[in-house]
Amino acid sequence: MGGMARPSSPGTRIRRYQDGGWSGDDDLVAAEEPLQLLLDGEPLSIVMRTPGSDLELALGLLFAERVITGFDDVERVRISAEAGESERGFPLEPDLIESNQVDVHVRNVRRRPDRSFLQTSACGVCGATTVESLALDHAPLLPGPKIDPDLLPPLPDRLRGGQTVFDLTGGLHAAGLFDEGGRLLMLREDVGRHNAVDKVVGRLVLAGGLPASRSLLVVSGRAGYEIVQKAVAAGIPLVAAVGAPTSLAVATAERFGMTLVGFLRRGRFNVYSDRDRLR
Amino acid sequence: MGGMARPSSPGTRIRRYQDGGWSGDDDLVAAEEPLQLLLDGEPLSIVMRTPGSDLELALGLLFAERVITGFDDVERVRISAEAGESERGFPLEPDLIESNQVDVHVRNVRRRPDRSFLQTSACGVCGATTVESLALDHAPLLPGPKIDPDLLPPLPDRLRGGQTVFDLTGGLHAAGLFDEGGRLLMLREDVGRHNAVDKVVGRLVLAGGLPASRSLLVVSGRAGYEIVQKAVAAGIPLVAAVGAPTSLAVATAERFGMTLVGFLRRGRFNVYSDRDRLR
Repeated sequence: MGGMARPSSPGTRIRRYQDGGWSGDDDLVAAEEPLQLLLDGEPLSIVMRTPGSDLELALGLLFAERVITGFDDVERVRISAEAGESERGFPLEPDLIESNQVDVHVRNVRRRPDRSFLQTSACGVCGATTVESLALDHAPLLPGPKIDPDLLPPLPDRLRGGQTVFDLTGGLHAAGLFDEGGRLLMLREDVGRHNAVDKVVGRLVLAGGLPASRSLLVVSGRAGYEIVQKAVAAGIPLVAAVGAPTSLAVATAERFGMTLVGFLRRGRFNVYSDRDRLR
Repeated sequence: MGGMARPSSPGTRIRRYQDGGWSGDDDLVAAEEPLQLLLDGEPLSIVMRTPGSDLELALGLLFAERVITGFDDVERVRISAEAGESERGFPLEPDLIESNQVDVHVRNVRRRPDRSFLQTSACGVCGATTVESLALDHAPLLPGPKIDPDLLPPLPDRLRGGQTVFDLTGGLHAAGLFDEGGRLLMLREDVGRHNAVDKVVGRLVLAGGLPASRSLLVVSGRAGYEIVQKAVAAGIPLVAAVGAPTSLAVATAERFGMTLVGFLRRGRFNVYSDRDRLR
């Protein structure tokens, strides 16, 4: 019955800030890795997911898209080890395989979906590839301003204070751009967390405000890979989330020298990378 | 500075259940509609979003995907009215146009993305089209069992009790399948809300348990269109979310005769469609 999702391993080294003081700790963050889904050997889609129950995820996706109507439509399934593992040329114990690829061969194709029907932003097959592929397009972030850590905890309330539609519906995510003094420059809301960030960056495109290398981005939900990726593209050196970050978000922030803050709440937060920017 | 997102209009007629009693109310839900993004006149992507700041959303997406590096790369932008509106044959006031299509023409293409690089599950251009296109594939849900409303409020705690990884990381969504007596049949966790539901449905595919017409689906976050769509495909007659539903989720639930519950918390919840199943 139980879910088989796993947290990141080993623990991530973080710094906690609370009531004006720092402490160090090891923390577990939710694992996030891309899964490549192949249909009859052809790449179909890449999904960012928490490893575990990958076959179920693949079958559930194909079912939702009406590619299969039941398990009878499935001829065979292959869960592939990552290229680096399988090239070692010896059989691997299934438990040892950290697979990020599922190939589903179908017997009766009800509907062959458009290629990459669920493809998210360009990424490779394993997390490390994803981060390195992003590095082909983007340079590390500029140091930007030093930020007083006490400036951060009040920002979610300031964000919430500007959320007109949330107050009415309780159902919208928000992304806010703040200046280095903690002033709210721009707020956008959306049912989708990523969309709210895209709207902020789109406004910066229109206004000629990119790279936004002296700004902070605060998001109302969690910080996954795609939030961090969009901030890297926009040159934003500090991202703070009210919720938890994922493992791939932390790895990406580390790679680009971004300060990634999570669990930003009254009086406290955690820092997952590049604390030096918080003097 | 402020976001221009809007709630659904007019209010949605809901029923509130609290401490054993029902009351009626009008409530606002967050608006969710598909936006079709065209690049140089060619369909590129469909994004489920809250209407408002659509041009910013389009530019932000194209920037994140490195199609444009700034506004200088944009030759012109056209925000189109829905087909039904423009066919009326008279000029519309911009404020009256409920547009769900943005066409960006670019001057210098840095990278032409794969077609439909961000396409989510198959859907049309306006919300009504989306729901009707889903109806081509799926019949209305079966009545299924009658459910005692008092059975629902304890379910989020039961779901949370089974979330092993959440307790460690604070960062995972959960989807749980319950039987009509409120027993947890299956729990899956993921950084992505949709993935957790896909994993549950994928397990049902493997187990030959579809349609799951006597089960309830409980999700830890909000209920957007895609959650409801996946439950419709799996034949699940009742979906309950700890968070808020979106307008398109409510419209889809109504179309298929699904009981959609939101804000499921201790002692209370709201029902957005088909309350008759809750006797």
